Amino acid sequence: MVAKRKIAILGAGASGLTAIKCCLDEGLEPVCFERSDDIGGLWRYTEEVIDDQACVAKSTVINTSKEMMCYSDFPIPKEFPNYMHNTYVMKYFRLYVDKFDLAKHIRFKTTIGSVKKAENYSQTGKWVLELTNLNTNEETNETFDAVLVCTGHHAEKNIPTFPGLEKFKGRVLHSHEYKHVRGYEDKNVLIVGIGNSGGDAAVEISRVSKQVYLSTRRGAWILNRVGQNGVPLDLIFTNRFSDVLRKVVPTPILMSLAEGQVESRFNHEKYSLKPQHRIFQQHPTVNDDLPNRIICGAVQIRPDIKQFTENGVEFDDGTTINDLDVVILATGYKFGFPFLDKDVIEVIENKVNLFKFVWNPDLEHPTMAFIGFFQPLGAINPIAELQCRWAASVFKGDLKLPSKGLMWADIKRKQGEMAERYYNSKRHTIQVDFVSFMDELAEQIGCKPDIWKLFKEDPRLALKCLFGPCMPYQYRLVGRNSWPGAKVAIQTLWERVDAPLKTRPTGNKPTSGTTRFIFQCFLVLIIAYIFKIIFGF
Amino acid sequence: MVAKRKIAILGAGASGLTAIKCCLDEGLEPVCFERSDDIGGLWRYTEEVIDDQACVAKSTVINTSKEMMCYSDFPIPKEFPNYMHNTYVMKYFRLYVDKFDLAKHIRFKTTIGSVKKAENYSQTGKWVLELTNLNTNEETNETFDAVLVCTGHHAEKNIPTFPGLEKFKGRVLHSHEYKHVRGYEDKNVLIVGIGNSGGDAAVEISRVSKQVYLSTRRGAWILNRVGQNGVPLDLIFTNRFSDVLRKVVPTPILMSLAEGQVESRFNHEKYSLKPQHRIFQQHPTVNDDLPNRIICGAVQIRPDIKQFTENGVEFDDGTTINDLDVVILATGYKFGFPFLDKDVIEVIENKVNLFKFVWNPDLEHPTMAFIGFFQPLGAINPIAELQCRWAASVFKGDLKLPSKGLMWADIKRKQGEMAERYYNSKRHTIQVDFVSFMDELAEQIGCKPDIWKLFKEDPRLALKCLFGPCMPYQYRLVGRNSWPGAKVAIQTLWERVDAPLKTRPTGNKPTSGTTRFIFQCFLVLIIAYIFKIIFGF
Repeated sequence: MVAKRKIAILGAGASGLTAIKCCLDEGLEPVCFERSDDIGGLWRYTEEVIDDQACVAKSTVINTSKEMMCYSDFPIPKEFPNYMHNTYVMKYFRLYVDKFDLAKHIRFKTTIGSVKKAENYSQTGKWVLELTNLNTNEETNETFDAVLVCTGHHAEKNIPTFPGLEKFKGRVLHSHEYKHVRGYEDKNVLIVGIGNSGGDAAVEISRVSKQVYLSTRRGAWILNRVGQNGVPLDLIFTNRFSDVLRKVVPTPILMSLAEGQVESRFNHEKYSLKPQHRIFQQHPTVNDDLPNRIICGAVQIRPDIKQFTENGVEFDDGTTINDLDVVILATGYKFGFPFLDKDVIEVIENKVNLFKFVWNPDLEHPTMAFIGFFQPLGAINPIAELQCRWAASVFKGDLKLPSKGLMWADIKRKQGEMAERYYNSKRHTIQVDFVSFMDELAEQIGCKPDIWKLFKEDPRLALKCLFGPCMPYQYRLVGRNSWPGAKVAIQTLWERVDAPLKTRPTGNKPTSGTTRFIFQCFLVLIIAYIFKIIFGF
Repeated sequence: MVAKRKIAILGAGASGLTAIKCCLDEGLEPVCFERSDDIGGLWRYTEEVIDDQACVAKSTVINTSKEMMCYSDFPIPKEFPNYMHNTYVMKYFRLYVDKFDLAKHIRFKTTIGSVKKAENYSQTGKWVLELTNLNTNEETNETFDAVLVCTGHHAEKNIPTFPGLEKFKGRVLHSHEYKHVRGYEDKNVLIVGIGNSGGDAAVEISRVSKQVYLSTRRGAWILNRVGQNGVPLDLIFTNRFSDVLRKVVPTPILMSLAEGQVESRFNHEKYSLKPQHRIFQQHPTVNDDLPNRIICGAVQIRPDIKQFTENGVEFDDGTTINDLDVVILATGYKFGFPFLDKDVIEVIENKVNLFKFVWNPDLEHPTMAFIGFFQPLGAINPIAELQCRWAASVFKGDLKLPSKGLMWADIKRKQGEMAERYYNSKRHTIQVDFVSFMDELAEQIGCKPDIWKLFKEDPRLALKCLFGPCMPYQYRLVGRNSWPGAKVAIQTLWERVDAPLKTRPTGNKPTSGTTRFIFQCFLVLIIAYIFKIIFGF
């Protein structure tokens, strides 16, 4: 009997947990190292601020819906809300850990000092981990056949330089340290940055503060969780049909349609939010409450900061605030790998050269995979899971990576596309589209569903896969480690969506979301086709 | 020189303040009695709960926009937010008081024991007030030529009987006593009633509580402040053109259009909110945040209550909650006049017989007017102001009321219409439509704008009056106490709407709300016309 290959997994968050599961599925022996004493990574709320430990605020609700953020062979219980509060995300993780018996593979309270190539790396591809047990302070070295880096990209705070910030006498904190509204009652609060953290903090604090100012250099397009007819937004736009549309319809037309839809909710120009860039050129900010808080005057949008003063701030347009109590820098995160040598991976300007965001093509052996180092327009978990499935298959030796040249070509192509599409910013170095990227990864594993083949076998299912939301279960229909429950999970989607909302009998007859959605899709297709005929695209 | 007629005004809230102003405009001598030590009525937030004193919660924001809720000759400063927080409403009241020098006519800390007919009432119509000065405890009687009752209809709590409520061991309060979210952290909270108070409390508490349950017997249609394209909702639907449409287009079609618009935001059936009644058959609940809080699971809609238990509640559908901490009864208010004899006015089942909600036809003299005792689909202030203008003109003797018979006929007609339109409930005994009711009152005063005449004189202004929002200034264009600034105020509406939102230069060109709105109105007209032709309505 051959000894199982030992895999080190760094971190027991959303990526690390599925990494353990995927290694077990491939018959590998995973050992997951977690610095804290619990699973969950940034989703585990702690009242105290822990340096370099990403953490949600007390009220944080995930902004991808449960059917799009689940692991592909473990649907989220139907009674859970569509958009889950962090406590529900944690409940789901614990259910996952219990179901697949993952806990025994995790060593808590263990930090990684370094990960270095083993002496015989050239021959074996092995890695040596320098570990510290925080309970005993014991330091050990351990050798592994391969490593899965699942440390996340939200730990190290990004704090830009602001002129005069050192002069400001009020409180200054990074959104990483923001926990809840207590302490902000009747205060004047400036929040810098209109990403999801900044937006969430702004609307929440504005309910108790005297005044919230939200400073944004570029403005933003604001999406909401509650999409057309109340359907979770990502269930509407994350589908294969939209992905096809993206390739058929010219991007400016798609952007105009999307902007029209978003602006029908509120005119971004009137609300001082309209950016110079277009809607798909930026990672979206999801915030259902912001327009209401702006029109009530509780949140005031302000431009970029020129300089801070002792008691306030001066903005780019010359306006000032002179009675500021708190400044919250919602300026995002940098990612990095302090435990890795620069010849293993180097991060420059938040950019990193990884094939499909997983593999460093310059490494001699495919024995180190990076999981979850991307920013999708959608949920991270199912993509991280696909990366883990791929990495585990490669570690096992069943799958091979393309040549170094091909991998580099793919990296360069992706970086070129990104530069063309998004405005240049550290924020957009790791963007991916959900469906396309899932498909790319699935092609590597051989688990991408063949829709046309499916049409012959099960046309109803094929329709759901084409027009319905591109749920993670689609990647368990065929190929390695397929899941017999996948088909039913796809078919019963709307039951799980509706279940948590059915809390009061109304006595009325409901209408079908799928029917309406397919109808709308056909309508868009016809319009696009007419455009094609008229303008000859 | 004839002595000025002395008018007693009861209460210095939104209605009482404009009552003073209108009396002064007519050369009367107003004396306003206010129990507390400040103006503002329910808009003045106090941390402590004061019995029988209506009061907003700390975070309350008015749900009519500033251009629709202002007094007709005193626009709200353009830098004020469109939907004002209670502190801004108070600031506006103070500006109004200062501008027209009203403060000196108010006697604070004075309660009314009774208002009785003077001995010579039959001849003079005079009233005797039994007053107590709360500072000195001195009691006095004072005689007045007329009385304006401006005590509001939000002071006395309506608390229905719930089986078992006395058994429940947790905290029980009426929404009147709800001030802010402190104390509700991590609690399970049941809110009973989905009116505006209940909805506001639910979404706010849900941001800190463990779980909020919102119980509603009938469900509700949920509107939002932020209307199509981000325009304040009441600026879209409160206009003369819509009022004409209401009379031309069959109500079921209008209701279907309105419901379609509301449901495009979220499907009320799926969110367990859909009522059995239609959209115009109920006073609307305005809540921009509710759908998002429901889909996040933070607010759960529940049916009517069957009974309370020691630790929780059983609902009509048999479901139970067994770990309830707090119950908030957002079950509204009753109105009444404890200081008035029953032969002066009698309130039965929240119903009262008043001509245009102002005059009791059975009184011998028109020397007592009731102000603000109605519930509009829109703002109360400008309607109360019209009532005051009318009453002051009548008190002065310049205007006469119709005969007793005509007044009674009008009351009966109104009650019939109400019974036909709304579902039967104590909540809908005093409903009025904004434009129609403003016009009805304006006709009595002679200040209703003649749109067709206006078309000849100033077609642009006429267009604005017809298609634009029916702002209170329209009732100062002509007639008694017209205001030279009215025309400009109407013309510059959108400047005041946009001003508080213009807080960050975007570098983009704005589009005109009026143009778009007029275009939309024509579109609706054409559709309605086509309907008319096809179906022959």
